[in-house]
Amino acid sequence: MRKKRIAILGSTGSIGVNTLRVIAAYPERFEAVALTALNSVKELDRQIRQFRPKYVAVGQQHVAVLKKAHARLKVLDVAQDLAQIVTSADIDIVIIAMTGAAALDPFLAAVRAGKTVAPANKEALVMAGDILMAEARKYGATVIPVDSEQSAIFQCLQGRDMKDVHLVHLTASGGALRDVPRSRHDKLSVRQILAHPRWKMGAKITVDSATLMNKGFEVIEARRLFAVAAEKIKVVVHPEAIVHSMVEFTDGSILAQLGVTDMRLPIQYALTYPERLSTGTTRLDFAKLGTLTFEEPDLRKFPSLQLAYDVLERDGLAPAVLNAADEVAVEAFLGGRIRFTQIYAVVERTVAAHMKGSECRKVGIDQIRQADVWARQRATEEIERL
Amino acid sequence: MRKKRIAILGSTGSIGVNTLRVIAAYPERFEAVALTALNSVKELDRQIRQFRPKYVAVGQQHVAVLKKAHARLKVLDVAQDLAQIVTSADIDIVIIAMTGAAALDPFLAAVRAGKTVAPANKEALVMAGDILMAEARKYGATVIPVDSEQSAIFQCLQGRDMKDVHLVHLTASGGALRDVPRSRHDKLSVRQILAHPRWKMGAKITVDSATLMNKGFEVIEARRLFAVAAEKIKVVVHPEAIVHSMVEFTDGSILAQLGVTDMRLPIQYALTYPERLSTGTTRLDFAKLGTLTFEEPDLRKFPSLQLAYDVLERDGLAPAVLNAADEVAVEAFLGGRIRFTQIYAVVERTVAAHMKGSECRKVGIDQIRQADVWARQRATEEIERL
Repeated sequence: MRKKRIAILGSTGSIGVNTLRVIAAYPERFEAVALTALNSVKELDRQIRQFRPKYVAVGQQHVAVLKKAHARLKVLDVAQDLAQIVTSADIDIVIIAMTGAAALDPFLAAVRAGKTVAPANKEALVMAGDILMAEARKYGATVIPVDSEQSAIFQCLQGRDMKDVHLVHLTASGGALRDVPRSRHDKLSVRQILAHPRWKMGAKITVDSATLMNKGFEVIEARRLFAVAAEKIKVVVHPEAIVHSMVEFTDGSILAQLGVTDMRLPIQYALTYPERLSTGTTRLDFAKLGTLTFEEPDLRKFPSLQLAYDVLERDGLAPAVLNAADEVAVEAFLGGRIRFTQIYAVVERTVAAHMKGSECRKVGIDQIRQADVWARQRATEEIERL
Repeated sequence: MRKKRIAILGSTGSIGVNTLRVIAAYPERFEAVALTALNSVKELDRQIRQFRPKYVAVGQQHVAVLKKAHARLKVLDVAQDLAQIVTSADIDIVIIAMTGAAALDPFLAAVRAGKTVAPANKEALVMAGDILMAEARKYGATVIPVDSEQSAIFQCLQGRDMKDVHLVHLTASGGALRDVPRSRHDKLSVRQILAHPRWKMGAKITVDSATLMNKGFEVIEARRLFAVAAEKIKVVVHPEAIVHSMVEFTDGSILAQLGVTDMRLPIQYALTYPERLSTGTTRLDFAKLGTLTFEEPDLRKFPSLQLAYDVLERDGLAPAVLNAADEVAVEAFLGGRIRFTQIYAVVERTVAAHMKGSECRKVGIDQIRQADVWARQRATEEIERL
């Protein structure tokens, strides 16, 4: 069997590192052909020594250092050359593990090159999911989500007919504030909010989990990935994070995907698909599991989730505006410039300002980029106005 | 679309009646072509007036009555003519809703005629599952289980590769005695034991649920239906009976099938397979669901389950002996002739006596029938010896 040749965009982050652990566990099956990072040049250097990739991309200021250290390695500029890397003939699978809107270009390039694309990045799908999926269909690319919830939905839908789908139940752990009344949200420290009960993740996504905006983004992602109507996507709070999501069929039968909370599981599935391999992770032990609980999300306590549904109804450029405004607002919160509940205020006002403007009919990548820039500017103004 | 033409063996029992409710809900898709019953001639008569079947079979003593009442109907003898009915060219799907070993012959005839066979009956699969499934493969018959647990496993396996299956998790509500210490089992009345917490079923199967022998039979059934090794089938107690069973794959990912406890759901799936139809049953409401619990079965408290695994390891004629001995013992319990814990004693001693005898290598239907007769005789003797 020929090895699957893998590019990891963002190899030094949590998803990137876990992808490399999966690759290291099956050296006869997988090969890390390209690794990229923005600034973590030390970790990238260590990865290069271990995995001997053919291509590397890094922030411009680090290119010379890496070139010097690895004479025969092709070292490229992460801001310019990702599209070039993901379209090379010697790449089969592109793992999009980098965060932020910068993933949009390489994602688009990868689907247009007909690659298998495994996105862990949310921003690209939220901003331009319709375009990305349409291009994937056009060029015969396969998109296999790495996010645990989207992977669960993907697995439940395998071999099923989309016309039989009644609802998608997207599970949410509920974030750090599930049991905290809204009146106390502003009294919690950034550190308390960053203590997510189930998953270890970056600061931005942990804050998004606390506001449930992360789940709102996932609703938008699921809409794009599976072409399922927004009203068919329901969020259910499931604090144990054992059921990663569910699909309910027209006849009332529900398929759920369960597993331990270890990102290597969905990553490995994306790499081995349509096959499966035994895994190095622990297995669920139902006898020890005890109890699984489910409850409805409190939309008054977590208005960001409702806002995401509203944005999805408006559609067009609104998701890109939501994404950009949230990024600016969460950064301001993490920097101590705004309070927790002001994240929502900033995002909501930015989205409302955009909705008042005229909506352009034809949404292309350029319009999305402009909306992104506009929303960042507007959100910054909203923060100043607070 | 041509209507699917359905034979229901045992149309007046709980599964039969629910099958007719599904057929009545979709008259443009399904047609009840054959109905059979042993003794419930009044209910059968009512069903004939409503569904206008082409064939009917009933106990010999009732044939004349029905012939008189329905001049143009073909009325046959349920003890003799089921094989003839299920092999008719105008039958597509055979629902085996009758109980007992008598289902074996028509099941075999139906698979040899290449029909779609939907068994709710456990006995035939426990006694002769290997032969039935081998014949189904040989003659291109499709076997779609109607039992909620087996239907769940079937649904989880659809479109999957059996080589990727790590475990089958068969859920058990735990029966009426889950929270009752074994020392008190003999103090409960037959009525208390017949009060199953989740499913309304016949007396025999409700007692089998209380001993967990029913789950033991399901382990044997799953072994036959899905060709999965006995050691890969685990029982997990799940009192809410919402998760109907699960399949765990080699990578640790688990697919579970969930739904309300309504037999129309797996029945309809067997009728519509591979499609699905919207259903008249209520849907699961996760917000109202609250909590799902899981625990290991207590094999010391419920030794019948362990006995079923032992029998499956012995294989050959042992499952047929187990089935027959249990039927005799449960009947004696329901008739007040033995105590609850003596059900196990009788079955265990009968199985042990059979294991002491020489095992015949080649197991055919005739050997199975002989083992069935032997075990009934032996179990009766064991009861007398108590």
